[in-house]
Amino acid sequence: MTDGPKEIEILIGMMAKLPGLGPRSARRAVLHLIKKRSLLMAPLSEAMQRVASRARECINCGNISTADICSICSDESRQNGEICVVEDVVDLWAMERAGAFKGRYHILGGTLSALDDIGPDELRIPKLAERIETEQVTEVILALNATVDGQTTAHYIADLLEERVRVTTLAQGVPIGGELDYLDDGTITAALRARKGA
Amino acid sequence: MTDGPKEIEILIGMMAKLPGLGPRSARRAVLHLIKKRSLLMAPLSEAMQRVASRARECINCGNISTADICSICSDESRQNGEICVVEDVVDLWAMERAGAFKGRYHILGGTLSALDDIGPDELRIPKLAERIETEQVTEVILALNATVDGQTTAHYIADLLEERVRVTTLAQGVPIGGELDYLDDGTITAALRARKGA
Repeated sequence: MTDGPKEIEILIGMMAKLPGLGPRSARRAVLHLIKKRSLLMAPLSEAMQRVASRARECINCGNISTADICSICSDESRQNGEICVVEDVVDLWAMERAGAFKGRYHILGGTLSALDDIGPDELRIPKLAERIETEQVTEVILALNATVDGQTTAHYIADLLEERVRVTTLAQGVPIGGELDYLDDGTITAALRARKGA
Repeated sequence: MTDGPKEIEILIGMMAKLPGLGPRSARRAVLHLIKKRSLLMAPLSEAMQRVASRARECINCGNISTADICSICSDESRQNGEICVVEDVVDLWAMERAGAFKGRYHILGGTLSALDDIGPDELRIPKLAERIETEQVTEVILALNATVDGQTTAHYIADLLEERVRVTTLAQGVPIGGELDYLDDGTITAALRARKGA
């Protein structure tokens, strides 16, 4: 395959490895970058270098940070006794965009999976159990994805912690703006079971 | 919107400007890069820096190159009297992957567009007319996209050059492996009009 000079081929190959990009979109992205090389490509390269050298995981919650303790864990006002458990940093970002949660987070780094040989020790579950004591946690909110692996992991954590702390999960139901006709059967069934007075 | 530390937010904002990536896929790509920061992010940043400092346009055909004259224009064996005219470098790459064309290229850099105020001088059309003489061109193959603007541009170039050189265009018809049921009416009509003995 010829995509022009070798340096450009190498760059396209790297870009094609990013999630959401395939070979074709990587070629278009690289060509776009080359056309805007001084305005976009050089600054992007520098921004990556900066993040690559400074980003690390928060040793407390697993959030991405530029310090050993992330800005949320070091914010005293967010120690309200609530810890929201999420699978990945993108989920923390999604929760923060919603702006409804004022406590701290705990990032598992995945879900339990017998197939992929991922047990509690591969995730950040022991650290979560430890934080229950050290941070006087009163409620653990499980905000895991509504997938089979996510729900299995939620059950495991609930079993592990429910004698020591209140454990809750996000409500399931019809999304805001959702149309019944477009919803899957499982969501409609869950929403019906959890119905409440109007 | 909080996507973590400022450096990371800036990087996500830049990635989201790439074609094919939106804010959500940019967040996922950046998180993936952070997780693989030594294996992928630092090398990607270096590859970008290298390309940004070395990539330029071939002064003859407009192809992306790391030299003033691209490898195709400097390859004597490809001076066979044929020039294939394409809109953009991605189209040259697509032609080269097909491997069926052995001549040289000419990249217009877009299409004529009255709406966007793009006339012949904004494209590389004067240079194409000049190359007809200097490179003893016998055939100009128009490989423009089958869009309205692409075909308008093809007609313009054909009118301009057809007294001096043979001008041809790519055949239109049913794609290899294409199923009639999935083709648009225009393609079926074009394929029927251009039918030939089996």
